Amino acid sequence: MRSSVLPVAPTRGRLRPLGLDEVRVTGGFWARRRRTNATATLGHCHEWMERVGWIGNFRAAAQGRVHRDRRGREFADSDVYKLLEAMAWEAGHSADGGLDALIDTLTAVIAPAQEPDGYLNTAFGRPGQQPRYSDLEWGHELYCSGHLIQAGVAQTRARGEGDLAKTALRAADHVCTAFGPGGIERVCGHPEIETALVELARATGEQRYLDQASLFIGRRGQRTLAETEFGHAYHQDDLPVREASVLRGHAVRALYLACGAVDVAVETADDDLLAAVVRQWEATVARRTHLTGGMGSHHRDESFGDDFVLPPDRAYAETCAAVASVMLSWRLLLATGEPRFADLAERTLFNVVAASPSDDGRAFFYTNTLHRRRRGSAPPAHVQSPRADSGLRAPWFAVSCCPTNVARTLAVLPAYLATADDDGVQLHQYADAEIATTLTAGRAVALSVRTDYPSGASVTVRIDRSPPGPWTLSLRVPEWTRGATAWLTGPDGARRAVAPGTATLARLFRPGDLVRLDLPMAPRWIGPDPRIDALRGAVAVQRGPLVYCAESVDLPDGREVDAVRVDPSARPEDGPDGAVVAAGELTRPPDGHADDAWPYRPLDQDAPAPVAERTGIVLVPYHSWANRGPSTMRVWLPTTTAPPPPPPAPPSGKQP
Amino acid sequence: MRSSVLPVAPTRGRLRPLGLDEVRVTGGFWARRRRTNATATLGHCHEWMERVGWIGNFRAAAQGRVHRDRRGREFADSDVYKLLEAMAWEAGHSADGGLDALIDTLTAVIAPAQEPDGYLNTAFGRPGQQPRYSDLEWGHELYCSGHLIQAGVAQTRARGEGDLAKTALRAADHVCTAFGPGGIERVCGHPEIETALVELARATGEQRYLDQASLFIGRRGQRTLAETEFGHAYHQDDLPVREASVLRGHAVRALYLACGAVDVAVETADDDLLAAVVRQWEATVARRTHLTGGMGSHHRDESFGDDFVLPPDRAYAETCAAVASVMLSWRLLLATGEPRFADLAERTLFNVVAASPSDDGRAFFYTNTLHRRRRGSAPPAHVQSPRADSGLRAPWFAVSCCPTNVARTLAVLPAYLATADDDGVQLHQYADAEIATTLTAGRAVALSVRTDYPSGASVTVRIDRSPPGPWTLSLRVPEWTRGATAWLTGPDGARRAVAPGTATLARLFRPGDLVRLDLPMAPRWIGPDPRIDALRGAVAVQRGPLVYCAESVDLPDGREVDAVRVDPSARPEDGPDGAVVAAGELTRPPDGHADDAWPYRPLDQDAPAPVAERTGIVLVPYHSWANRGPSTMRVWLPTTTAPPPPPPAPPSGKQP
Repeated sequence: MRSSVLPVAPTRGRLRPLGLDEVRVTGGFWARRRRTNATATLGHCHEWMERVGWIGNFRAAAQGRVHRDRRGREFADSDVYKLLEAMAWEAGHSADGGLDALIDTLTAVIAPAQEPDGYLNTAFGRPGQQPRYSDLEWGHELYCSGHLIQAGVAQTRARGEGDLAKTALRAADHVCTAFGPGGIERVCGHPEIETALVELARATGEQRYLDQASLFIGRRGQRTLAETEFGHAYHQDDLPVREASVLRGHAVRALYLACGAVDVAVETADDDLLAAVVRQWEATVARRTHLTGGMGSHHRDESFGDDFVLPPDRAYAETCAAVASVMLSWRLLLATGEPRFADLAERTLFNVVAASPSDDGRAFFYTNTLHRRRRGSAPPAHVQSPRADSGLRAPWFAVSCCPTNVARTLAVLPAYLATADDDGVQLHQYADAEIATTLTAGRAVALSVRTDYPSGASVTVRIDRSPPGPWTLSLRVPEWTRGATAWLTGPDGARRAVAPGTATLARLFRPGDLVRLDLPMAPRWIGPDPRIDALRGAVAVQRGPLVYCAESVDLPDGREVDAVRVDPSARPEDGPDGAVVAAGELTRPPDGHADDAWPYRPLDQDAPAPVAERTGIVLVPYHSWANRGPSTMRVWLPTTTAPPPPPPAPPSGKQP
Repeated sequence: MRSSVLPVAPTRGRLRPLGLDEVRVTGGFWARRRRTNATATLGHCHEWMERVGWIGNFRAAAQGRVHRDRRGREFADSDVYKLLEAMAWEAGHSADGGLDALIDTLTAVIAPAQEPDGYLNTAFGRPGQQPRYSDLEWGHELYCSGHLIQAGVAQTRARGEGDLAKTALRAADHVCTAFGPGGIERVCGHPEIETALVELARATGEQRYLDQASLFIGRRGQRTLAETEFGHAYHQDDLPVREASVLRGHAVRALYLACGAVDVAVETADDDLLAAVVRQWEATVARRTHLTGGMGSHHRDESFGDDFVLPPDRAYAETCAAVASVMLSWRLLLATGEPRFADLAERTLFNVVAASPSDDGRAFFYTNTLHRRRRGSAPPAHVQSPRADSGLRAPWFAVSCCPTNVARTLAVLPAYLATADDDGVQLHQYADAEIATTLTAGRAVALSVRTDYPSGASVTVRIDRSPPGPWTLSLRVPEWTRGATAWLTGPDGARRAVAPGTATLARLFRPGDLVRLDLPMAPRWIGPDPRIDALRGAVAVQRGPLVYCAESVDLPDGREVDAVRVDPSARPEDGPDGAVVAAGELTRPPDGHADDAWPYRPLDQDAPAPVAERTGIVLVPYHSWANRGPSTMRVWLPTTTAPPPPPPAPPSGKQP
């Protein structure tokens, strides 16, 4: 295995990932967000977890008073670990050692809470607490262990094995002992340990971690967890992983589990298991995913809905589910090389992951609704939000899994841009970047990418270094170009139309050669599958990979977005500052309308027609909404199309 | 106050209720359900509550072991009380004394658990339990007391004050002491005590119970309850009752509170408070009520949604919310005399309350969705269902508030049929019935009603007894007749068209006189307000007061309801056995369609058209669904109307 700073390092698969030491993002959309993440979000999360006592829980545990003093939910430890993971990846491409020192300081708080046998959790197992592993349905103990392990792997890969990594190894050894053959033959209510153990096996070369992950994947669906009010599917414990046809239940749980299943499938060459997850991904993307890439339809249990249940105003679309979806797509892309996985990752990164943090990186959306009907109010700055859904981003939540998940995702984002194989380099996501790697037989390749993506139409790749023989440069042509035309221009100036999928140039490259991809960036109307009941009669706008929305701050006279109707027979046009302008109208009830009537009426009876004023409707990228104060917002906009014709009147009451 | 078997006995108001001793239902739709309720449901609930230990909790409390042995949720006591209330009302018009004996037997189990100061709750206050009133947000202690008081009032009115009523009085006195001036100046997280205390004040003439209810109504909205993850609105503690503009938060809580507010307003002549509740009712009916009359859009917190958030496939529409809505409409009807309140009660009774119990009265819907996408499976017969939502009715639930609420509603249903005032008798709901009452000055009136309602078009009222002078017979002309014509025929044969609202005949009646109301019963298409996003492009069928639905058991070839499209330009027709047949089609994806594609597509790109086969679609009354085995079901049906025209294609990528 190559030594590299890799978030995911499979030993097999179609494509070889490039590490954070091989890809640098140098400018543009993601560089700005990554800078904010490094300079603001990491510190913000650290401050909050000191303030709300989640870091203090480890001190309390080491001092024997955690049964009395513990703060936060049962899974609070995991957010400290996710922050450490983010810090470790970030330290991997940072010149100064400040983050390393911070990681050591935090590790010095955490490690003393570890028990002699390696068990480490501040919520269970000490006198006055519930026994270890007594509540696998809700206790999140192995989930927390998994995040500790991922933090340890990040430290090892980014900076070399330190105390954090050693603490994680001891925890992993404990998990293998406690849950191995002859141990507790059950699973954790929240998957995460599976993918973590496989990555640890990859980082250490130790087979036993992979074996334990395989055991967990095999046990899932055997109903070793008790049924709760949400049913066995909530925990993905209704069906074995390889028998399920679609993702279901709690969305983050389902997606983390699928990541672990892909990891196990790849490392054990289990093609059936891999094919099962691919099938589940296909069905989930075709029937259970919002236009933004967001996943999860139910607030009650944070779960997927039934097929085609995708209500925009009740979209849960948890930020963490988006992070997990990107993790899954990345693993499937590496395993198969198919661009459809990068397509979904792009959609999800631009329209959910990028939507969560505020411009200053100090407030977050936990859920990412596609329709907000009431203006939000600013959450108090120093109180954690008790609710997941909010009309404005909140600085912290009672359940605050999302901020640290955004942080660790932005920290590794450069690794998602490109891969290599024996034959060349593949570009999957477009950003200003410097890429340098070595193909087989020591053939060094270096590229720089320049683009204004996602607003600009062109991506230019400059060959900075190239080996003597021919090799292949591949570029993903996004699925959103279908029905329009993308163009690829080679170093020789030859230009050809390319279809959605992968465009390749196999040739001898010379330093200074330019390759250019031109994408059809005109904004377009998007319509839903007719089986999505909640979207019938509504359309959305997408421009490149970005989904757009109407936001009330852009409407005249204090109007709200529910007054908007759009006319899909007219083409939406580019507006100023990245906005799009669509033909449409603002409606209001007719004058004198009391508006307190029963809202269902016989079709054979005339209804008062609303008053409509024709106007251009300004739409903005969805990821940017709610950065200009409280507003209402919607992605899916009803059309101005006339209602169905009235039926004939019924016969009147017969003469008695 | 007249002595009568009255569920609600206001001392003021526009209309005077008639008691269960004045109105008898003698046949038809409701008589069948009432018979099943008396002969099956009451015993079913009693057996289950013995089986699951909720009755045993009282024994355990009396024996000092309840801290160890208690079963069920914190509010389990309340279901025993609601069963007792149902038994007491039923005993009020039953010839044999079996129910009285059963009430006495159960009371002998309950009363010993009462503490010397009158406190009675099996979940709190004893050694090893949480202290009394230490968890007003979730503890439901006053909610349970309220249901005990309502059971005591029922016994007093139906059979005279017995041990149950005495136990309830002691509990009420304790509540007034504990929560009166100088006591705990807070409210219960679940309203119910308010309406119960007013009714106790009416039954006993004791002012202090009314005063205590007024205190509770005034305290609500002062944020004396802690904020939970669901926000202050969940407990209606966000705004004072008289300041709120619409019902919000947990639907059953909101509706019980509104009932209590009307009761207090009526007894204290507080017209402003009454007007506030009427305004809230209007806004709730216009913007937050499903076509069936069901209320509640969110599963997460069993709450109302924002205005016009009425997703049919996620309708919560809890049976208990329907019961509470009928209670509220009845109180508002008595206070104002306005038929719109009886209209909503009719809709809710036929389409939610009647939908909950199975034909045999031994299984129940807790939620009443308007669209079921997957076939349900039969719940095991002897296990309480952990989930509220189900595709088939379940015999019992871990939270089983609904069965006993249906039982007490069916027990008092005859009282909802008619009222009197100084000038005459008003008929509000139509069923075969015998009505006998006495107007002012001892003027005895007796009527019999004969009808096949809700399937038949005619209601015939025979005057059986009439005083010498003129008086007024009023009949509600349902709101669902608007746009069609209803006819009223007087004893003289004179026939006139009558509009939705109230039709009156003021005259000298003679025994044997017949009055006939003929209603336009042809099935009709109903369309939604365009602001209800979840229903755009869909229509429903209503016939008389009954909402109809498509159910998969009526479709050919094992097809599911999501394949159905209907054509609203053709009139739906009456079919056999109460069914309706609508013109429509069954759709399926085109041959060779893989059906695993991204479900959103550019409108400028051709979409594969589904294959549609024209056919008649059989629709059945919604209340009857899921009585023929597992099925999918939907009320709102997409139309065959063509989608909006495609927009022009975007310009293709420009030459670089």
